[in-house]
Amino acid sequence: MDRTLTDHPLVTRAAALDAEHAGVDRRSAFTLPHGVVYLDGNSLGALPRAVADVVADVVTRQWGERLIQSWNESDWWGAPERVGDRIGALVGAAAGQTVVTDSTSANLFKVFVAASRMQPWRTRVLVDPDSFPTDLYVLESAARLAGFTVEQIHPGRAPERIAQLGDKLALVVYSSVDYRTGELWDLPGITRAAHAVGAFALWDLCHSAGVLDLQLDRDGCDFAVGCGYKYLNGGPGAPAYVYVRTEHLEGFHNPVSGWHGHARPFGMEREYDPAPSISRARSGTAPMISLLALEAALTAYDGLEVTAVRSRSLSLTAFFVECLGALALDLPVATPMEGGRRGSQVSLRHPRAYAVVQALIARGVVGDFREPDIIRLGFAPLYVSHADCLRAAQQLALVIDEKEDERGEFAQRAQVT
Amino acid sequence: MDRTLTDHPLVTRAAALDAEHAGVDRRSAFTLPHGVVYLDGNSLGALPRAVADVVADVVTRQWGERLIQSWNESDWWGAPERVGDRIGALVGAAAGQTVVTDSTSANLFKVFVAASRMQPWRTRVLVDPDSFPTDLYVLESAARLAGFTVEQIHPGRAPERIAQLGDKLALVVYSSVDYRTGELWDLPGITRAAHAVGAFALWDLCHSAGVLDLQLDRDGCDFAVGCGYKYLNGGPGAPAYVYVRTEHLEGFHNPVSGWHGHARPFGMEREYDPAPSISRARSGTAPMISLLALEAALTAYDGLEVTAVRSRSLSLTAFFVECLGALALDLPVATPMEGGRRGSQVSLRHPRAYAVVQALIARGVVGDFREPDIIRLGFAPLYVSHADCLRAAQQLALVIDEKEDERGEFAQRAQVT
Repeated sequence: MDRTLTDHPLVTRAAALDAEHAGVDRRSAFTLPHGVVYLDGNSLGALPRAVADVVADVVTRQWGERLIQSWNESDWWGAPERVGDRIGALVGAAAGQTVVTDSTSANLFKVFVAASRMQPWRTRVLVDPDSFPTDLYVLESAARLAGFTVEQIHPGRAPERIAQLGDKLALVVYSSVDYRTGELWDLPGITRAAHAVGAFALWDLCHSAGVLDLQLDRDGCDFAVGCGYKYLNGGPGAPAYVYVRTEHLEGFHNPVSGWHGHARPFGMEREYDPAPSISRARSGTAPMISLLALEAALTAYDGLEVTAVRSRSLSLTAFFVECLGALALDLPVATPMEGGRRGSQVSLRHPRAYAVVQALIARGVVGDFREPDIIRLGFAPLYVSHADCLRAAQQLALVIDEKEDERGEFAQRAQVT
Repeated sequence: MDRTLTDHPLVTRAAALDAEHAGVDRRSAFTLPHGVVYLDGNSLGALPRAVADVVADVVTRQWGERLIQSWNESDWWGAPERVGDRIGALVGAAAGQTVVTDSTSANLFKVFVAASRMQPWRTRVLVDPDSFPTDLYVLESAARLAGFTVEQIHPGRAPERIAQLGDKLALVVYSSVDYRTGELWDLPGITRAAHAVGAFALWDLCHSAGVLDLQLDRDGCDFAVGCGYKYLNGGPGAPAYVYVRTEHLEGFHNPVSGWHGHARPFGMEREYDPAPSISRARSGTAPMISLLALEAALTAYDGLEVTAVRSRSLSLTAFFVECLGALALDLPVATPMEGGRRGSQVSLRHPRAYAVVQALIARGVVGDFREPDIIRLGFAPLYVSHADCLRAAQQLALVIDEKEDERGEFAQRAQVT
């Protein structure tokens, strides 16, 4: 079979699909190295063009020239809520429920402890054993402090276990999309199941915000957290966010009760009086350069509907797998192929996955490796095209051919995300 | 009296003092607006010239071109410890005990909870009622979670109360320098008193790191936290840091146990196993643009000895008060004039302090207001000169004269720091 695919019907099909989903194409709003197919936007989003000028202005003019006055003049003070609302709009959250603050790890801790205080007589918590590990680590620690017990239950079995636990259950904590396999979990269904026994649902949106058509308000989501540096393209370590449903705001008691969450932070009062708004989820002073980089990055989403973004995302991942088939590449696909069960990535299994990923990177297709055998490819719908999918599949086929010809062992070492 | 001070002996004296302390003059390493005397570096440090280029490189090349590879290539992963050690060198901490992470508020929470676990049978904590309020808010919250009791005791009375509490006492939490009055507290003495009863000392260095000749290791300090955006000039909301004395590292259990504090973060293990090093004080992914801006900013300290910085700082504040005297300005000085009891600021009291500060700013002398009646002036020894001190005193005298001639009321509103 001709794996170079010149003149293949898939070339024409890629062009047709790119035309069909052109409304979401924001490639020109990003800077990406020439010749690179970047399928790692689920680890670190690409650089939106708008960021560099904004950051230069923040450093040189706002900080350098206007100094302390910028807290008011440039409304640094209001940035966490302003950017929070912008993210809220991408996840189906009306204004006033989302704030940018701290890291996802710190926010999981804060939200867990706050939620545990709402119904302290319920002491059981469910979490996915395949969560991104920080979720497991932080929740175990927070639960110990709160006197709660965490039980690891796969999301597919969550509704059954929720019903069994009944009024012992305080909270379920799940990721909307599995970080390794890309499987999309049933946020509305698991949330409903939790509510049916009077428990709350906290969702980790790290791998879904900006690529799914999330509807947190509509689906009754109680709390959510997520990072700013994956599909939101906020830059390395961009600040994270917290969503607290309006009806829970009054009862939300942030354990990291820093002055930025106070109702009158400049009153310099001795007693903590939480802000009546989502601001109470703030703690200390936010890293403003990184936060305003995130704000600039989010302009790449201006004018886009999340349903259109989701549609292009599904088309990209489906087309990529179609290309694998056409190339007779029969690597096991860890990601469900039903659209309703798939995030914005395709994960493939290979016994030498690490070496395959390195060889792909050398060929200009950037994905990443995840323990133990996952080739993880993320499809950021704003800057990845169907033509990119085809090229990635083709390069992968060439790499697999090479690997099958080799007999050497590939050193495996920790790879950074 | 001639308040314009042309040809006054103080002009000559300012020049002589600037010559004497010229070794610490790094004014050319900072960008400051022309004609401004910036006495607010204790709120937001001025912009070091090195920052803009570094930030542009981080955004455009490291993030934009090298993307995910920069985590290894540019050692983003090691930046928290690398920058931590640089700060450690400024506060008398040998390498491996200081890490940049989160905000001061979050770090206070983390360190308090970790410290509370070391001797859980001791449940009493002392804190200064005049602490920056976030310290009070966060410690109260953390103490509630840990089942501890916080008692507010002025640092001047701390040794006596420490002795009374004896083996009930777990921890004392004090600021090295009072954020309003600029009073310097006896870190070595209070730490010794805590140790004498077997308790630990946690110091907040926000208003002292970079201007005092702190010696955390020598003085037996157990834990410390501080921010990056005051005298360290890391930019608005720059990430904060944690110091944990080597002997406490093994017993330090960070409650916000995110994956960045794991011994093998890329092992993606289900159990949290804290790094054997100071890295265990990390939580989530650090805001890298802000963190690397801080790293660039710290180069302004290259080649400086903290003892020389401290000496210039004391000279600046003493000279400023001398100028007030020469100008017959008899505002009450809230800051102790004994060198051993003074940080790097001079705080003056005035019933219309807010209006005075605003009028000073209009005249190009930037300080800030603190409730209820404090005109707070910070003297960053790297970029403030004795000539600046004289000019500030002179402008203050003119403002006070004006205010005395006025009979209007000045609207007071919250001012941002």
